[in-house]
Amino acid sequence: MTAVAPLSATERTTLGRRKIRAVTERSALYAVLDEALICHLGVLREGAPLVLPTGFGRDGDTIYLHGSTGASSLRLANEGIDVCVTVTLLDGIVYARSINNHSMNYRSAVILGKARPVLDPEAKTHALKVITDHLAPGSWEHARDVNAKEFAAVSVLSLDLAEASVKARAEGPDDSPEEIAANLSWAGVLPIRTVYGDPEPSADLIAEFPVPPHVLNRAP
Amino acid sequence: MTAVAPLSATERTTLGRRKIRAVTERSALYAVLDEALICHLGVLREGAPLVLPTGFGRDGDTIYLHGSTGASSLRLANEGIDVCVTVTLLDGIVYARSINNHSMNYRSAVILGKARPVLDPEAKTHALKVITDHLAPGSWEHARDVNAKEFAAVSVLSLDLAEASVKARAEGPDDSPEEIAANLSWAGVLPIRTVYGDPEPSADLIAEFPVPPHVLNRAP
Repeated sequence: MTAVAPLSATERTTLGRRKIRAVTERSALYAVLDEALICHLGVLREGAPLVLPTGFGRDGDTIYLHGSTGASSLRLANEGIDVCVTVTLLDGIVYARSINNHSMNYRSAVILGKARPVLDPEAKTHALKVITDHLAPGSWEHARDVNAKEFAAVSVLSLDLAEASVKARAEGPDDSPEEIAANLSWAGVLPIRTVYGDPEPSADLIAEFPVPPHVLNRAP
Repeated sequence: MTAVAPLSATERTTLGRRKIRAVTERSALYAVLDEALICHLGVLREGAPLVLPTGFGRDGDTIYLHGSTGASSLRLANEGIDVCVTVTLLDGIVYARSINNHSMNYRSAVILGKARPVLDPEAKTHALKVITDHLAPGSWEHARDVNAKEFAAVSVLSLDLAEASVKARAEGPDDSPEEIAANLSWAGVLPIRTVYGDPEPSADLIAEFPVPPHVLNRAP
């Protein structure tokens, strides 16, 4: 278990950029992963990188990925394949006094490692619950269970959070004292938020169903 | 020029998934790229995939990427390096009657090709304007120009939109007729939107500046 260990700062996960804070608390990694709705999964295909958006979920120090995405190209050996899973939350556009200091506020996590297929039925059921709880909390209890045919058709990958880094920028523009004193233009941050709209009932609902609380009251 | 050509559907950009529509209009590619605030750039580093969020902008059939992100690891030869640039817009969570049919509505673009450094000063200035116009429309005119030192320090990559694919899902749950008739649970879509909050002026503004229109009236 590495649940209380700080994030590893291997050379691979160290991205040297000015004013971008490297976050070393493991709780920050969890927070980024738990808030983001999707990740971007990078794999190697025919010697070139391929990046695909995909659903995922976290349980402790493991994330589970919905393996169907681009699955035709992912021939997963049991020993796993090298992947990079990146999760990004955009928090704001940073307007600086100079073009050069324009930036973004964001939180991002980069996880490197070997993704492995989850084959054991009990572990796979657990992984599907973790992914469902992430995508649609409450649905695991509300919707029909996965049946045997669906269970066989779906594939799930697991990836340990052993080699991961978190970066965050959460501040105003980074202009020089001279630029600030020159006082020539506005500077500040335009916040970005992800929000949910009103639930849209399916057109083919036969009876009048109330929108269930796990959908109606979902907070971003 | 391939501006009016349909999207190429090479084997590499064809991701076979049920109910995910492959979009072949080039205008759909432009629309996804122009709406998204960031992309995820996949590169190969020491034989393993690395995926980093980065700012970008589009001009015609070229996208420009801010090359500073993770730049320490990107030793760009003039002939370019293989990259995958993926852009994803999340539009909704799809709640189905069964766990298995839960999904997301989204639009995504995957671009494969060789990213090349933009070295010619005039082309690099243009690329910086394109990236700025994408990140912060209006700032190129409002903020201080890039000076010689900043210009030398920044790096920009270009990538042609020659090999690209767009996928989109924009519909309700995909349950079977039997499942719909069984009528056992709610089904529908919870829309997702990205919105801007109120602009937050920088704490170090000396005079009382009104928020300029290009920030105040920015629409997602």
